[in-house]
Amino acid sequence: MSDTARTIRVTVWNENVHEQREEAVRARYPEGIHGAVAAGIEENLKGQVEVRTATLEQPEHGLTEEVLADTDVLTWWGHAAHDKVADEVVERVQRHVLGGMGLVVLHSGHFSKIFRTLMGTTCSLRWRSEHDRELVWTLKPHHPVAEGVPSPIVIPEQEMYGEVFDIPDPDELVFVSSFSGGEVFRSGCSFHRGNGRIFYFSPGDQAYPVYHHPDVRRVIANAVRWVVPAESTRDLPRLQNCPTGWFENADASKARA
Amino acid sequence: MSDTARTIRVTVWNENVHEQREEAVRARYPEGIHGAVAAGIEENLKGQVEVRTATLEQPEHGLTEEVLADTDVLTWWGHAAHDKVADEVVERVQRHVLGGMGLVVLHSGHFSKIFRTLMGTTCSLRWRSEHDRELVWTLKPHHPVAEGVPSPIVIPEQEMYGEVFDIPDPDELVFVSSFSGGEVFRSGCSFHRGNGRIFYFSPGDQAYPVYHHPDVRRVIANAVRWVVPAESTRDLPRLQNCPTGWFENADASKARA
Amino acid sequence: MSDTARTIRVTVWNENVHEQREEAVRARYPEGIHGAVAAGIEENLKGQVEVRTATLEQPEHGLTEEVLADTDVLTWWGHAAHDKVADEVVERVQRHVLGGMGLVVLHSGHFSKIFRTLMGTTCSLRWRSEHDRELVWTLKPHHPVAEGVPSPIVIPEQEMYGEVFDIPDPDELVFVSSFSGGEVFRSGCSFHRGNGRIFYFSPGDQAYPVYHHPDVRRVIANAVRWVVPAESTRDLPRLQNCPTGWFENADASKARA
Amino acid sequence: MSDTARTIRVTVWNENVHEQREEAVRARYPEGIHGAVAAGIEENLKGQVEVRTATLEQPEHGLTEEVLADTDVLTWWGHAAHDKVADEVVERVQRHVLGGMGLVVLHSGHFSKIFRTLMGTTCSLRWRSEHDRELVWTLKPHHPVAEGVPSPIVIPEQEMYGEVFDIPDPDELVFVSSFSGGEVFRSGCSFHRGNGRIFYFSPGDQAYPVYHHPDVRRVIANAVRWVVPAESTRDLPRLQNCPTGWFENADASKARA
Repeated sequence: MSDTARTIRVTVWNENVHEQREEAVRARYPEGIHGAVAAGIEENLKGQVEVRTATLEQPEHGLTEEVLADTDVLTWWGHAAHDKVADEVVERVQRHVLGGMGLVVLHSGHFSKIFRTLMGTTCSLRWRSEHDRELVWTLKPHHPVAEGVPSPIVIPEQEMYGEVFDIPDPDELVFVSSFSGGEVFRSGCSFHRGNGRIFYFSPGDQAYPVYHHPDVRRVIANAVRWVVPAESTRDLPRLQNCPTGWFENADASKARA
Repeated sequence: MSDTARTIRVTVWNENVHEQREEAVRARYPEGIHGAVAAGIEENLKGQVEVRTATLEQPEHGLTEEVLADTDVLTWWGHAAHDKVADEVVERVQRHVLGGMGLVVLHSGHFSKIFRTLMGTTCSLRWRSEHDRELVWTLKPHHPVAEGVPSPIVIPEQEMYGEVFDIPDPDELVFVSSFSGGEVFRSGCSFHRGNGRIFYFSPGDQAYPVYHHPDVRRVIANAVRWVVPAESTRDLPRLQNCPTGWFENADASKARA
Repeated sequence: MSDTARTIRVTVWNENVHEQREEAVRARYPEGIHGAVAAGIEENLKGQVEVRTATLEQPEHGLTEEVLADTDVLTWWGHAAHDKVADEVVERVQRHVLGGMGLVVLHSGHFSKIFRTLMGTTCSLRWRSEHDRELVWTLKPHHPVAEGVPSPIVIPEQEMYGEVFDIPDPDELVFVSSFSGGEVFRSGCSFHRGNGRIFYFSPGDQAYPVYHHPDVRRVIANAVRWVVPAESTRDLPRLQNCPTGWFENADASKARA
Repeated sequence: MSDTARTIRVTVWNENVHEQREEAVRARYPEGIHGAVAAGIEENLKGQVEVRTATLEQPEHGLTEEVLADTDVLTWWGHAAHDKVADEVVERVQRHVLGGMGLVVLHSGHFSKIFRTLMGTTCSLRWRSEHDRELVWTLKPHHPVAEGVPSPIVIPEQEMYGEVFDIPDPDELVFVSSFSGGEVFRSGCSFHRGNGRIFYFSPGDQAYPVYHHPDVRRVIANAVRWVVPAESTRDLPRLQNCPTGWFENADASKARA
């Protein structure tokens, strides 16, 4: 934040399972969902980002300590293979988020191990895949994540996600969606955990071409920019034993930055 | 809440380790920390509660499915043996909390597996055990958890807990403490997770007689009453597939209660 | 709260203008909107409440110091004559709310002087009176205000209220509505101000028979019960000059209750 | 935010009464409190700001429609003459804040008409002017307003402000202070109202040289930067009548930006 000129290092993660199993998904997302998400970020943040992708089938799911240490913002898409993600990778990602790495969780990622671990709740919801029209309404028009998109964003066909969405109260509720079937959903939510920022954005599905929608791509790019950490290195909160008067020592009380 | 006449079934959990290892702790808490906590709840909620205790060394730590199903409110104290608590018991407690069981987390319980699991963060803090005086200030004088206690509560000797306390923003910040060394701490915090309520209250330590302090006992009893679930049976949030128009069927839209 | 057996003294306020001007409204609400609201509270809280009504045309709008001092919960409905409410009555009501009196603000009361004064914002919104169907979704199924009603509550015909609703973030977001036209609205919101609780609930309009809907009546009654103050007398927050060590004097540190 | 290169136009407002009445204050703040606050902002945001000052005794208190329309961020200091501020100027400032202008409220400004109007509460607190040492603790180390300052900030002598501070729950609680007398205070709080951001920061007083403290000056400058609106023109939330399907018209659904 303090150094706005810094290039944002983004890692777009995708389980990449539907694309391999289902021809229709492959046709819809020829570069994979990760390819579409990455392209949307790049086109909206031209010259401000370096985007790489990582997928489930790679060693350590492509999320080694080195990759995460070199990542400012991780985006997460998963659906069919949440339980295939290794617990130690989940713990590693959690540690990086709490240490400052930004995290953007997309759609069915609500049920990923990493999101459930960070939320502490079931993250369950109502759903239906019946070509509902989704309208994404902005509740905070001047929030940076809502910049440049209409309210509502009109998504002609999409999976329905409905309340109750079992999450802790978000720190900010930026978007609420309605569906043609009548349901509502908190579709854009921010959370702070440790020194990291998290944004959950629900539009997007393997069965609909939502990640080609220019407004959806803009929101994801906005979210990436919004969760960028203040510092490029990790700062994990930790237990500290502090003798009486420790802060009266000038060296001990130096500013974080 | 709806049935205020219902007896509150409380299970007071304690790792019960310091009491067995250290004579000074045994002298301070002859009935164990769990004994002191249970006595404080009983004296403040006479006729409204049934209190049992459970400890680490019991089979399944005394927290079987049957015990939890029969518990409205669980209180948690642990310190030296957090890592001895079995993961499956932690998952079971989490499931009961998300399903509605109230949870009161005490002092060093901030580092318990169950609290960290429900918060999703490190729950780390600053600390010092040097006989600081703690003053517990009420920020919400009409909150039920603050009923009947002075502001500040004066605790002559106590371990210092200081910020940064790495938790999600609490839903309500009821108490903030200062210490004679100058530090501050969010000492009384409420959280809603799933259908359950959680209250964290920091005063209380094995090395000081804080659980004999009448105001501390009153707050713990108030917290027990405040986290009581609306229903005596568990209601875990769950994924629901909902066909279009499901709610127009009268039977499908029946009220929760 | 501490004394659940206490009778709740409710004052139902209504500007009572549409009922006098428009025959259709009089036919819909023969006892006035205040009559319908009062009846709904009485039928749901039988034996727990004493309900009186007050209207704009009465001296001091029926809200004298004596009436307010004798009121635990005030409900507010206004629409056509917000600017006819005297500023000194608004200030008096505000003082009572900050001192602990509960306030339930209904529908077009979003634009009342008292609600805008307590919120500090414009409280503006989108609207349309075109017989939309409203669906009121519960986000917090175990919240006392949602007790006993289905999710969604189906209101066959109602005025549309849509986001952006210009209010401070509510302390709790209990209900979100969708409308057949596609809009969404935060229709059930709680706020704490001073020592008082406020609940805003949007369903209900002079042009539709919404206050005869049993679920709407149930929610209003639940809200009345939820905003009841902890104490029957007012406790307005006030400036206090405190000499060093004031709280070490036992008398000075007596508990609130 | 979107245009980080834009110069921030700051208006520093001060009632400027103590400085004229009391020689000691004049000696402490030879350029007035507004002069010290302005200098602190300029030294920390060199090249990023244009700072002007305005005071009570000027026509319309120096806060004409033209000045406010040309202001991105207004800072407010008042104490002895809150009731001398004209109601119409307060309403004008409120309108500009809700339309997007940032507001930084300092110390005794907690009791200003504008802050009370925006909060809706009494904004009362405990106080004592007896040379307490204040320690300002950061609760959110990566919040932009906490950038570059130690935790705690040590203020050798300061007026004591203590809880209960009667404000709505802040959107973010960035700083909590303790005082040598033992009290605690929420000394750094953010609020969103309408399309505007507000930051309240309590350190600073006419009777102590706190506005010469480099860390206090840094926080005020950080707060100024943090409340800068997304847009340079005002966007007051307003009532909108929306016919069914209005958003399906492409022109009607254009993005805010």
